[in-house]
Amino acid sequence: LPGRKVLIVYAHQEPKSLNGSLKTVAVEELRKQGCSVTVSDLYAMQFEPRATRNDIVGCLHNSEEFNYGVETWEAYKRGDLSSDVIEEQKKVQEADLLIFQFPLYWFSMPAIMKGWMDRVLVQGFAHEYPNCYDSGLLKNKLSLFSFTTGSSREMYAKGGINDDIRYLLWPMQHGIMHFCGVKVLAPHICFAPEYVSEEERKEMLIAWARRLKTLWQEEPIDCSPEWYFK
Amino acid sequence: LPGRKVLIVYAHQEPKSLNGSLKTVAVEELRKQGCSVTVSDLYAMQFEPRATRNDIVGCLHNSEEFNYGVETWEAYKRGDLSSDVIEEQKKVQEADLLIFQFPLYWFSMPAIMKGWMDRVLVQGFAHEYPNCYDSGLLKNKLSLFSFTTGSSREMYAKGGINDDIRYLLWPMQHGIMHFCGVKVLAPHICFAPEYVSEEERKEMLIAWARRLKTLWQEEPIDCSPEWYFK
Repeated sequence: LPGRKVLIVYAHQEPKSLNGSLKTVAVEELRKQGCSVTVSDLYAMQFEPRATRNDIVGCLHNSEEFNYGVETWEAYKRGDLSSDVIEEQKKVQEADLLIFQFPLYWFSMPAIMKGWMDRVLVQGFAHEYPNCYDSGLLKNKLSLFSFTTGSSREMYAKGGINDDIRYLLWPMQHGIMHFCGVKVLAPHICFAPEYVSEEERKEMLIAWARRLKTLWQEEPIDCSPEWYFK
Repeated sequence: LPGRKVLIVYAHQEPKSLNGSLKTVAVEELRKQGCSVTVSDLYAMQFEPRATRNDIVGCLHNSEEFNYGVETWEAYKRGDLSSDVIEEQKKVQEADLLIFQFPLYWFSMPAIMKGWMDRVLVQGFAHEYPNCYDSGLLKNKLSLFSFTTGSSREMYAKGGINDDIRYLLWPMQHGIMHFCGVKVLAPHICFAPEYVSEEERKEMLIAWARRLKTLWQEEPIDCSPEWYFK
């Protein structure tokens, strides 16, 4: 939609990978629609995933016993978070839609992207009890997890060797995005691109571009346990 | 048990934290039993969580298009993984029991520990299709996730605001440990230590030491969907 702002948080080491192409397809299709698109290319940025004392500029609230959650909350209020975190928070604040593009690592996102969640979505900025879940501080935003897998669709089906892929979406979609008040669109999953033909990989890119054309008309999923564990 | 080897993978920035104390209690209790205990203190080691080309020493198998999974698999077979990864693999190989000690971050482990999983448990070392799940390459080992939460037990009960805590254990216990063939002992969870009295925190340490005394007699959980989503 013209005027809409999109942040793509992207975690792949190789621009020529399918993840790289999916990211490029999204940038192109959304810009074609008149959206403003920003990409956080985490590996290219050498984004720091570790939650440490370095995330707080200047003195600590309690230097006797370091508590990351408390210190980043206080630092956020003082405007004393490290500049790379502030930069990402600005991008999130401006965005109407967050797209996370990554290869699934161990039933979850790669550590570099988990570090983005750990360091960027601090208390005070993304949530502040009791402002969580439907009243989370990032409400009125949308999110979408777009990822590739190593295993096939059959291996991630109910009763398959990895069982239902929805089981592993719970911590990411509900535990992170829903907790911050961000609505969740259905995930976009490319199964086992390494084991299909070049032709089928091209079809995956076309299917993603096609979905993006009508993305703004989609209804968010109902982020309740029933959606995940029915 | 005398002679048993334990690796504690520990992720907290502050030695004085409850996580720090839980780690120390485990080291002391297990050594008292005659176990040999090794600790990987990830923040103190400044452990690298990012999965990059730096994990492969020397030339790449395919330098045209970098594929982390393929390259680390090949590098493992050649003995060309980076030395910090090899060091951790040696510790895992020798261990009878892996204990993961961490504060829950976003329904999961902190990024620095996810990076340990991403980089250490490479194909060829921890799994190699079809050797996964019950025939994973790390079979005959035990694991235990020991963690603290921000939310209370009630908030993590079925129907509570965060819903059943078992839902978030699936990717870590089943998706990682079970996938590698490692058996999983019941998790050890200290709920909301920041919101209880000093007395109750001391009781948490005593309870952990008490559990460790009979740990070797415990039966692993049945790591099936029913355990998590019943």
